[in-house]
Amino acid sequence: MFDAETRPYGSFTTAAHPTVRRACVAVGDQVLDVTDLDPVFADGTLDVLLAAGPVVWADMRSTVAAAEGPLVPLADVRMELPFTVSDYVDFYASEHHATNLGRLFRPGTEPLTPNWKHLPIGYHGRAGTVVVSGTPIRRPSGQSKPAGADQPVFGPCARLDLEAELGFVVGTPSALGEPVPTGAFADHVFGVCLVNDWSARDLQAWEYVPLGPFLGKSFATSVSPWVVPLAALEQARVRPPSADTDLLPYLREKEDWGLDIQFEVRLNGHLLTRPPYATTHWSPAQMLAHLTVNGASVRTGDLFASGTVSGPGADQAGSLIELTRAGAEPLTLPDGTTRAWLADGDEVRISAVAAGGIFLGEVAGRVG
Amino acid sequence: MFDAETRPYGSFTTAAHPTVRRACVAVGDQVLDVTDLDPVFADGTLDVLLAAGPVVWADMRSTVAAAEGPLVPLADVRMELPFTVSDYVDFYASEHHATNLGRLFRPGTEPLTPNWKHLPIGYHGRAGTVVVSGTPIRRPSGQSKPAGADQPVFGPCARLDLEAELGFVVGTPSALGEPVPTGAFADHVFGVCLVNDWSARDLQAWEYVPLGPFLGKSFATSVSPWVVPLAALEQARVRPPSADTDLLPYLREKEDWGLDIQFEVRLNGHLLTRPPYATTHWSPAQMLAHLTVNGASVRTGDLFASGTVSGPGADQAGSLIELTRAGAEPLTLPDGTTRAWLADGDEVRISAVAAGGIFLGEVAGRVG
Repeated sequence: MFDAETRPYGSFTTAAHPTVRRACVAVGDQVLDVTDLDPVFADGTLDVLLAAGPVVWADMRSTVAAAEGPLVPLADVRMELPFTVSDYVDFYASEHHATNLGRLFRPGTEPLTPNWKHLPIGYHGRAGTVVVSGTPIRRPSGQSKPAGADQPVFGPCARLDLEAELGFVVGTPSALGEPVPTGAFADHVFGVCLVNDWSARDLQAWEYVPLGPFLGKSFATSVSPWVVPLAALEQARVRPPSADTDLLPYLREKEDWGLDIQFEVRLNGHLLTRPPYATTHWSPAQMLAHLTVNGASVRTGDLFASGTVSGPGADQAGSLIELTRAGAEPLTLPDGTTRAWLADGDEVRISAVAAGGIFLGEVAGRVG
Repeated sequence: MFDAETRPYGSFTTAAHPTVRRACVAVGDQVLDVTDLDPVFADGTLDVLLAAGPVVWADMRSTVAAAEGPLVPLADVRMELPFTVSDYVDFYASEHHATNLGRLFRPGTEPLTPNWKHLPIGYHGRAGTVVVSGTPIRRPSGQSKPAGADQPVFGPCARLDLEAELGFVVGTPSALGEPVPTGAFADHVFGVCLVNDWSARDLQAWEYVPLGPFLGKSFATSVSPWVVPLAALEQARVRPPSADTDLLPYLREKEDWGLDIQFEVRLNGHLLTRPPYATTHWSPAQMLAHLTVNGASVRTGDLFASGTVSGPGADQAGSLIELTRAGAEPLTLPDGTTRAWLADGDEVRISAVAAGGIFLGEVAGRVG
């Protein structure tokens, strides 16, 4: 549950007015409607606030901290996608995750590709299928090639997975041709959300060479309905592991943007894994510097995510493919059922708490 | 030059009113302002027309065919990006291109990956850096790893390339979870434009394993300012090569959507190559069916491109990397200069004509 001070931002509708968006902050398990508090909230989303830049962000944080008004129980509103997603980029920033996947996908070779420690690897995902927490996740169909088969087959995904990730929401845009240095991270990024990057591993394995993941990821990406401003995470800032490696100058950080955030992933209510974000090799400031170093611009509403957060421990991996060794070692849940992959009806809930006890909300979704 | 009948749609501004968008059709080398002709054009872009669907598209084509009014020389207006780009996907649909690149990137192995003839390979690109023809292209900087080097280096791209492609503009959206069959292609896709998918080959080669192209592509993608409706291309429809292969049912076409379109690529005015689109293996109806078969939705303004169009002949490749064999065999231009890759100041112009003599416009850009 959110404390009374964090006041993350969101957008909701009600059953009485299902098409009327209202902007809000969370206070405990209630929402405070801020739509009429300031013109930046007038459209009921965070779009105008995001575009307004760091001075307004700081002002508004004071304003909403002092705001009072009727509180509505969260259970009485419907949380919506809080901002319009422009481009969506997914990174691959956890060394433990990349190592685990390298071992599974390319056995017998060095698990990390030669470029991995030199740059934050990333790729573009589908912005149009980013959905808010609670949206039902339909099991995708597609092509896969079973081991030993001559030809690919078509059918429902048999290896549906979750990926626990941290998302970064861009506010201030940048100009085409002008890279954003690591030191300007907080001038452009407004805050964070939680991300579940649902993955169809059988589709992904067959399609991803040579141009990367496509249909194995594009059917849905869930995000938490709350955006927590960077300003609430000051106590959580830590040195990222990449700081101790030899980096090209544009990737060196002026100040640390690693984040000490503890994730928890629950499957049908059972705690599945506790990935520690602080072990993530690349910081989000490095991700943004890399994303723009070629002159690519960012826009208000761009979302970039860390990639799966996995720690070194066996109970710290942020995806089933790691936890079950690609299905070879199914998990037994406390209710006695086993899971190699997600079953129809399964509900995944990912929550996180930042150092200092700052709750970051949760992203949930049910399959089928 | 456009004939008087094609009447492709675009959006322009003028020096007198640089922020006021006006919708238009091209008539020869002049533009006819249609902003006040119908409410769908009221915002001066094609966004509302695209969303309106096939019945309105057909009506509007009759309306603009009969429209009269003052014609303004193209030289007196500034053409703008004609629609708001939602998601951008780039395919890899030319067998000759994929074979040529496979030989260059993965020598000694089978040039086509095992999946290539079973599905149209594609990946998401950066929608926020799609720019209209004429926008200057700044040479990107980034990491690359020179042959034989121990460590990557940072600097301006040394292998800047062009890619001649055909783009497809989505009008009618689809619902999340509901695939668009090949037979519904023309219900969703409004028309075509020309695309130059600028590529930094040295950045791309270092970054693209395992998650695909990222900074090697994301700095800029140029599109022609005119969208030619599918209705103007009826005479150009041909059977695509994939029709003669064994395909999973969702990729079989009810009617042929291959297109007989002849591209021409000019470098500083000199004809460089003439890629024939009709040789493209996968049709755009197959691309859309694949893109959505996992339940991914499309939105109004989605752009998907064919990937580089290359024919079987040595003078039919749609990129420099193919024409110069990755720089090993530089081209000599008629002015006596040579090019392995694009030089600062180079201007690339890509134009195309569909069977029946339908001019499709051009996409131009100058480096630096």
